[in-house]
Amino acid sequence: MRISELATRAGVPVATVKYYLREGLLPPGEATSATQAVYDERHVERLKLVRVLREVGRVPVANLAAVLAAVDDPDLALQDVLATAHHALMPIGDGQAEAPDRATAAAFVAARGWRVSPDAPALVGLASALSALARVRGPVSGDVLACYGDAAETIAQMEIATLEPTEGIAALVADVAIGTVVFEQVLIALRRLAQEHFSGERFGRPAPPASPGKRRRTKARST
Amino acid sequence: MRISELATRAGVPVATVKYYLREGLLPPGEATSATQAVYDERHVERLKLVRVLREVGRVPVANLAAVLAAVDDPDLALQDVLATAHHALMPIGDGQAEAPDRATAAAFVAARGWRVSPDAPALVGLASALSALARVRGPVSGDVLACYGDAAETIAQMEIATLEPTEGIAALVADVAIGTVVFEQVLIALRRLAQEHFSGERFGRPAPPASPGKRRRTKARST
Repeated sequence: MRISELATRAGVPVATVKYYLREGLLPPGEATSATQAVYDERHVERLKLVRVLREVGRVPVANLAAVLAAVDDPDLALQDVLATAHHALMPIGDGQAEAPDRATAAAFVAARGWRVSPDAPALVGLASALSALARVRGPVSGDVLACYGDAAETIAQMEIATLEPTEGIAALVADVAIGTVVFEQVLIALRRLAQEHFSGERFGRPAPPASPGKRRRTKARST
Repeated sequence: MRISELATRAGVPVATVKYYLREGLLPPGEATSATQAVYDERHVERLKLVRVLREVGRVPVANLAAVLAAVDDPDLALQDVLATAHHALMPIGDGQAEAPDRATAAAFVAARGWRVSPDAPALVGLASALSALARVRGPVSGDVLACYGDAAETIAQMEIATLEPTEGIAALVADVAIGTVVFEQVLIALRRLAQEHFSGERFGRPAPPASPGKRRRTKARST
């Protein structure tokens, strides 16, 4: 097929296909003239994977080549391909973490019995959140962290158990990107909605948006 | 105090203080000459709140004025101030949601008995995640969503129960911003770490980063 059909099949603009070709993220097609080439199903599949990694997994372009190389390397163990993909996903937080918070993050994970790579980017994401909290509100209690840890464990166990590795390594890597990043959005949206519900239970429901009339505060302000 | 001391006390650059003054997000100081003004503790407190909302809550500047007006309005009920702050926080996802996914999101929330505002931005965040999943992987099973819903509910209930409203409305609004956005980062970091752990349990541990030697795949690839 021509580049225009390839672009249509994968749902990306032709300019994006050309960009991926220039960056070496998509192998060249078979040249049919000095200016034209034809592409096959493998190009469609690769383009779909790149699209999911970029658009859903927000994998930085700088990390994309490493993920694709891992997918393509027949000698690499499955778990190493998955770790490469997982570590390349959209980073969490700003990466600014103080050394004591990095130690707290590592100790928390070790105390739960989770075995993770010491260079897992999520460890830095956790430490940077702990640093931010320490700056604006003081250290986080262990009981509170344990509540998040329990929830994370329950979800992750279900997620990994439902991964389906029989569809091939490329499909599995796409699933890891989708499952990690999009379900992150599901989880934080549900948490905010549940917060709104329990806030209403505790403090009273806000005025409905249809009639935004003000209601008098029930307590004197103590600012 | 002078503007330079105000900036130091609140931990922001003087240029930022001037920007907030121009935008009306910080009330003017008391003029002592044509070019100078003095500021007091209320300015320090307000500046700290604006800083938390901007830097931690990622409240868009366009929403900031509405949150501060709600904090300042003595006639507004506490729950309306909290809802205003909560809805102004960093939005979830890209806001692109198909109508059926919006309906699914609303139905899920209603079925759990959560009472939320129909214009809650997190409803759009949930719907946009469901739309993204439907595009790349097909509809999400109700059992899977229920697992996330249970986790979100457990966490949110603990979070709202531990809010401390005695410190005044400004402190409570800052706590809502910090609690919602920074603990989001804690939660998603812990989930990724737990995923890495359970992935290792199921598929084998990846090679340690210290010796990045490749390990042969244990199964033939089925791509």
